[in-house]
Amino acid sequence: MDLNCDMGESFGTYTIGMDEAVMPLITSANIACGFHGGDPWVMEKTVILAKVNKVNIGAHPGYPDLEGFGRRKMELSPKELRSTMIYQIGALRAFAAAHGTRVTHVKPHGSLYLKAVEDPETAETIARAILDVDPEMAYIALAGKKGKNMERLARTLGLKVIFEAFPDRAYTPEGTLAPRSMAGAVISDPHTVAQRALMMAEEGAITAIDGSRIKLEAQTLCIHGDNQGAVDLIKGIRTTLGTRGILLAPALG
Amino acid sequence: MDLNCDMGESFGTYTIGMDEAVMPLITSANIACGFHGGDPWVMEKTVILAKVNKVNIGAHPGYPDLEGFGRRKMELSPKELRSTMIYQIGALRAFAAAHGTRVTHVKPHGSLYLKAVEDPETAETIARAILDVDPEMAYIALAGKKGKNMERLARTLGLKVIFEAFPDRAYTPEGTLAPRSMAGAVISDPHTVAQRALMMAEEGAITAIDGSRIKLEAQTLCIHGDNQGAVDLIKGIRTTLGTRGILLAPALG
Amino acid sequence: MDLNCDMGESFGTYTIGMDEAVMPLITSANIACGFHGGDPWVMEKTVILAKVNKVNIGAHPGYPDLEGFGRRKMELSPKELRSTMIYQIGALRAFAAAHGTRVTHVKPHGSLYLKAVEDPETAETIARAILDVDPEMAYIALAGKKGKNMERLARTLGLKVIFEAFPDRAYTPEGTLAPRSMAGAVISDPHTVAQRALMMAEEGAITAIDGSRIKLEAQTLCIHGDNQGAVDLIKGIRTTLGTRGILLAPALG
Amino acid sequence: MDLNCDMGESFGTYTIGMDEAVMPLITSANIACGFHGGDPWVMEKTVILAKVNKVNIGAHPGYPDLEGFGRRKMELSPKELRSTMIYQIGALRAFAAAHGTRVTHVKPHGSLYLKAVEDPETAETIARAILDVDPEMAYIALAGKKGKNMERLARTLGLKVIFEAFPDRAYTPEGTLAPRSMAGAVISDPHTVAQRALMMAEEGAITAIDGSRIKLEAQTLCIHGDNQGAVDLIKGIRTTLGTRGILLAPALG
Repeated sequence: MDLNCDMGESFGTYTIGMDEAVMPLITSANIACGFHGGDPWVMEKTVILAKVNKVNIGAHPGYPDLEGFGRRKMELSPKELRSTMIYQIGALRAFAAAHGTRVTHVKPHGSLYLKAVEDPETAETIARAILDVDPEMAYIALAGKKGKNMERLARTLGLKVIFEAFPDRAYTPEGTLAPRSMAGAVISDPHTVAQRALMMAEEGAITAIDGSRIKLEAQTLCIHGDNQGAVDLIKGIRTTLGTRGILLAPALG
Repeated sequence: MDLNCDMGESFGTYTIGMDEAVMPLITSANIACGFHGGDPWVMEKTVILAKVNKVNIGAHPGYPDLEGFGRRKMELSPKELRSTMIYQIGALRAFAAAHGTRVTHVKPHGSLYLKAVEDPETAETIARAILDVDPEMAYIALAGKKGKNMERLARTLGLKVIFEAFPDRAYTPEGTLAPRSMAGAVISDPHTVAQRALMMAEEGAITAIDGSRIKLEAQTLCIHGDNQGAVDLIKGIRTTLGTRGILLAPALG
Repeated sequence: MDLNCDMGESFGTYTIGMDEAVMPLITSANIACGFHGGDPWVMEKTVILAKVNKVNIGAHPGYPDLEGFGRRKMELSPKELRSTMIYQIGALRAFAAAHGTRVTHVKPHGSLYLKAVEDPETAETIARAILDVDPEMAYIALAGKKGKNMERLARTLGLKVIFEAFPDRAYTPEGTLAPRSMAGAVISDPHTVAQRALMMAEEGAITAIDGSRIKLEAQTLCIHGDNQGAVDLIKGIRTTLGTRGILLAPALG
Repeated sequence: MDLNCDMGESFGTYTIGMDEAVMPLITSANIACGFHGGDPWVMEKTVILAKVNKVNIGAHPGYPDLEGFGRRKMELSPKELRSTMIYQIGALRAFAAAHGTRVTHVKPHGSLYLKAVEDPETAETIARAILDVDPEMAYIALAGKKGKNMERLARTLGLKVIFEAFPDRAYTPEGTLAPRSMAGAVISDPHTVAQRALMMAEEGAITAIDGSRIKLEAQTLCIHGDNQGAVDLIKGIRTTLGTRGILLAPALG
């Protein structure tokens, strides 16, 4: 199983995330590319940190909205979105090249990620941008019901897709994430989160909010590194999966 | 002889330069990378335009100062400057990759170009960034006395350097550009500019402001594409060089 | 009748609009505030130009999206939108104060203007921001059916509202602007535009695309200053209105 | 004695400073204006926090360089600098107006502050911008030898100047701040800092690094609020000054 985490989102004097503590605990890093977060020096530093820790390097492109941290809706035309993706992915690839490594995957950030889940045109625009830059790069997409669209895209375009699940988020019976506004949508108890990660990894399924069991075939688990509590969650997942003999490794070799 | 021109400096709704008229007339385009000018979509459009016209594609990175168009002095630390270069070069390389072509050279923009001419540490920081991303890319540098520093860098680091001269700028007897504030520093008469381009191309020399003849070995001539007058200057240079049988071609194959 | 035009939208080296030609022809200037266009020096220059020409000075705040020129949809929270309005209006007021004049009105720009027309919460957020900064400032809003919402706001909050009509735009029978994508939505014939301006001024009405006559009570006509053709349109409107004895003056004294 | 502290330097999701803990402890807040730090919503929130705590509100304008936090050297032309000051001061004044209060002072930030200390043209440009917007606002300037220039400006222009001293910084015998690169330049021991604040307040003097006593007539002491240690320093200063009966109050009523 792969553990992916958003990294490199600090900007200038501003620090977000505990990158140095988290990097040794994960297998794939999604590195911000300077639009919603990150700056050139933060990107280079984070690429070095990932390489040293033998963590796969992914691009984490977002909307050009630093003030909103890429979480606000924006409406870019398809050609603007495409170029915005190529630009950010390319910037990260140069840091990887400069340090003798490569970008293995792309995961859109924030509001753009959510739009790509819902809107096939957005997903396809991102997919084609990835393929045009380097068809070896995989697209990290939401596992579950919404992932069907991505599966079709992958087949049609020859795109590699890695599906991800969220051990610390509640799921609806329909297999989508329960909205953050709902009570219990975000799970913070380390034991529960670790058990859900285990169920995802071993059974390819999760228990939804109504108690039903839904299929959720994920090759990577998305975790967070915002604070010490988050770091502890990751450690709990690692221990629990390790105890059951589940190997942690990047989804792409 | 190579003719290079700064291109792709428009931003969003804002247009600068007559890129479509100029591109068929030049052999190397230095494309802005979104910091002092340019945006992702402008970059992609300009890469396509260059490719269609069989023009060499170069990165034209600048300071992160859109308001000042990269012409204001800024003081970045060496590591900030390095990352800022890698970022911009990488972004352009991705557009080139997406369109089946490549970035052949790098020419710093505006205030950063001038700093690199004067300050060896800045020049070396840029040179190492270029080499770390792709050692096949050449650095476009100012021909003449100031170029000695770059020659040394090139030898030491194994860097390709292309020296450029400015047919429309007056030179001091010391072989540097006369400051813009000096009367006559910028030459606008098409015949004079074409003759100076010819002297640079045929003799590797130019007449300085005191009438003395100075050596100026340049592999590329820098021209501008801001307005119709500039386009006419380029046409005059092309005709004059063509009449003397001087082939126009990129400095790097 | 008042003639209002968006001004001061240039940025750094980038120029948009023919402000110096247009300013003597209008009575109210909506000056960009540095978010979708404009920069501090452009703002100060434009305030001076307006003052010299005895033109009323208005704030023209937009979304924080220079690349999209404020024309892309963005989703700001009400508190973000409120602060974003106060910030921009305040910046312009300081230039007015520094030159012994004042800001008389506020007109949201682009995508934000359109959102305020459709969405009462957005309109109210902007209205309250205006009132909190200076209740003497008026809100320029779209005349016609959609203006009913603003009339209600004005009454409820004690807000001054100035309604505007667009002589160069086609109207639907419902009294709204025909979408730009519709053939004939933008009218460029100077005679037709001048006659429509006259009908708006004299009759408080306009002929819609189906030939019906709709009411359109406007205190200001919005015109554009993008190019020489636009300047000629303004001159035609001035001549036609002047011939009929209609005085051109700011809507607010 | 006045205690001033830089506040409101957070941006979007990024947090810097312990504003809520610090505001009740100080008498003057220098609020960032969105260029080197701060954003519209942070500015409004900080103005409210200052008002509630009866703290004087000052503008803290900086260079347009969020990535460098306004600490990098930039070279703006005098007219660019002037407009950049008016813009930022005006934005803050609007938040103050919206909350029924006012901006009492202006303190340039970071690299711009340092330039104004050394360069009379920069100081005068800022001074004139302040006066043109509101001549009741005071300029916070460095006390000591370098302050002579500001005293002259104040007399010539009719500008209010408030001189500040730094209890946690070592001073040279010449009365300037010891450079941060020098060992001991920044003092972190709470007792020492409090004693230095007391000497500044009671004697208008401080002990320089060579043991000599230098004059330092300051109406305000600059303190920092970056972390818990900084907050403890402030508390120590307050207790020590309070014990000696020194009243804490804004320098301007």
